[in-house]
Amino acid sequence: MTKKIRIAIDAMGGDNAPNMVIFGAEKAAIRFPEVEYIFFGDETKIKPLIEKHSGLKGKSTVVHTTEVVSPDDKASVALRQGQKSSMALAIKAVKTGEADSVVSAGNTGALMAMGKIYLRMLDGVSRPAITTFIPTAKNEVVMLDLGANLECDEQMLLQFGIMGEVFAKTVLGIKNPTVGLLNIGSEEAKGHEEIKKAAELLKEEESVDYYGFVEGDDISKGTVDVIVADGFSGNIALKTMEGTIKFFSTMLTRTFKSGTLSIIGYLFARMAFTRLKTRMDPRKYNGAVLLGLKGVCVKSHGGTDAFGFSNAISVAHDMVKYASNEEITKIINKRAE
Amino acid sequence: MTKKIRIAIDAMGGDNAPNMVIFGAEKAAIRFPEVEYIFFGDETKIKPLIEKHSGLKGKSTVVHTTEVVSPDDKASVALRQGQKSSMALAIKAVKTGEADSVVSAGNTGALMAMGKIYLRMLDGVSRPAITTFIPTAKNEVVMLDLGANLECDEQMLLQFGIMGEVFAKTVLGIKNPTVGLLNIGSEEAKGHEEIKKAAELLKEEESVDYYGFVEGDDISKGTVDVIVADGFSGNIALKTMEGTIKFFSTMLTRTFKSGTLSIIGYLFARMAFTRLKTRMDPRKYNGAVLLGLKGVCVKSHGGTDAFGFSNAISVAHDMVKYASNEEITKIINKRAE
Repeated sequence: MTKKIRIAIDAMGGDNAPNMVIFGAEKAAIRFPEVEYIFFGDETKIKPLIEKHSGLKGKSTVVHTTEVVSPDDKASVALRQGQKSSMALAIKAVKTGEADSVVSAGNTGALMAMGKIYLRMLDGVSRPAITTFIPTAKNEVVMLDLGANLECDEQMLLQFGIMGEVFAKTVLGIKNPTVGLLNIGSEEAKGHEEIKKAAELLKEEESVDYYGFVEGDDISKGTVDVIVADGFSGNIALKTMEGTIKFFSTMLTRTFKSGTLSIIGYLFARMAFTRLKTRMDPRKYNGAVLLGLKGVCVKSHGGTDAFGFSNAISVAHDMVKYASNEEITKIINKRAE
Repeated sequence: MTKKIRIAIDAMGGDNAPNMVIFGAEKAAIRFPEVEYIFFGDETKIKPLIEKHSGLKGKSTVVHTTEVVSPDDKASVALRQGQKSSMALAIKAVKTGEADSVVSAGNTGALMAMGKIYLRMLDGVSRPAITTFIPTAKNEVVMLDLGANLECDEQMLLQFGIMGEVFAKTVLGIKNPTVGLLNIGSEEAKGHEEIKKAAELLKEEESVDYYGFVEGDDISKGTVDVIVADGFSGNIALKTMEGTIKFFSTMLTRTFKSGTLSIIGYLFARMAFTRLKTRMDPRKYNGAVLLGLKGVCVKSHGGTDAFGFSNAISVAHDMVKYASNEEITKIINKRAE
């Protein structure tokens, strides 16, 4: 019998919560029959939705609360005033062991702050890293940190390398993932002191297949499977990439609509473009993990739909099923011996 | 009568030098009849090319040298051994006043090092910033620093803001350019200490229309006209953007070639796509300036063609014609009073 995986869901987080959240959970339930859900939020809204989505029957419980962290709340305010919010209770369910992981599409800053304070760090890990994966010319690349830490010393970057490698193995199923450090040149002499020292540490680290320095354009090229960055430049790289894709897509749409001939052209090429759109669909890459916490904590985009949310659940599921955190702890603590 | 503008050209720098360089200079000569060239390099190669490109006759002189900085030379090696190279002599011509500006498609590190050492800084400017402009959903955005300085304090970021604003006005002809600071969030509390202090300084600076913090996706959106960043994250943002555009273009080509229908679709939409390609053509945005040096020093992409090189010359021309450096000095020294 497959082991049950219990996922705590912040049912009230996200632009179209709770509808989008509950519908997304049902979508994920079809893919992962072993998942059971604990939904946190307003039961008068949640229960009728669970009734409606029959795929959730018999595998859902609801913990009622009317408190919600607002998208505009500062993290400090959320921490102080939102202790009984759907987000806080969902995270605490992981802490107490009632759930194996938590997924929220709510306020990112609040989730990070609550995740750190309620769950604490994995033994031996010094800081959490926001981690996600995105499409490249080859396959997908794992990127971390995407904004949890403005400045990172070499030990943090080393740990991010280890955590990213484990994530690539367990969640993306890549057998021998390579790890690169994001820098402004590929030569060994380039970059800050911290990044040069991190390169030395990663070279020596047995559990990591260290590739070397990579540059901004290596992200899309798929040069490596994991890209380690400090949270400042990692965040800027990810958002620059998202912005560029959006810009290009807009230009493309405008191009096709620019005249009768190009509209006809679009009609002919439509199926091919649907395939391209499917490949690049940001909903497929939804689900950023606060890697390094004692407990699996996944952030969904607030503006996603049910399909996107189901993919964030998928990340939470995979990290539990393939024991990502246990693997990280094992490697980090072996180093410390 | 229009004032002559004398441009020193490193004829030996770039993948297809000197052919590409000389041909590019002729293209620029058509647009800017007031430009005179001093070509530095092997005259046995350059002179026949000038003969061939009749647009250069009567406005070109050649300074002979057989020494060349190799693309693989470290900056320190180039500085020591390349003092009579075409690049070094071209830069020195600006120093001595024989030329008003210099353009090279050679080794970036060497150009930066030689530029700094031979030309020195503009009075009152503490560090140079690599500056370029790129297409956005609106128009174009000026970005700096793109890699000259790994770490930047608030005074440097302030100066980059002032220099970027002047560049946007003089080279791009934007009347009241807005300036943003690249950060990982738009809220005032986000970011390093340096960036927060720089925000305060830019707010107070009269010559700058400061917008506030911008994020990675604001680059393509065209939220502001000038984006100021430290050289590390600015370089990563620019290269990430270049890589993403390349990735998207490859995917697009692959999509059109994926079947008979999509090929027919392409044939119909071809003209519209040519327009899109023209708008995004990286050759149009060729020409990065080492802003802050006492003298106009422009770096062309090494792999560009004659059209691209002519645009790097255009940047050099505009900076001289519209007196960008004089304007920067005026503002910086007014501050210091």
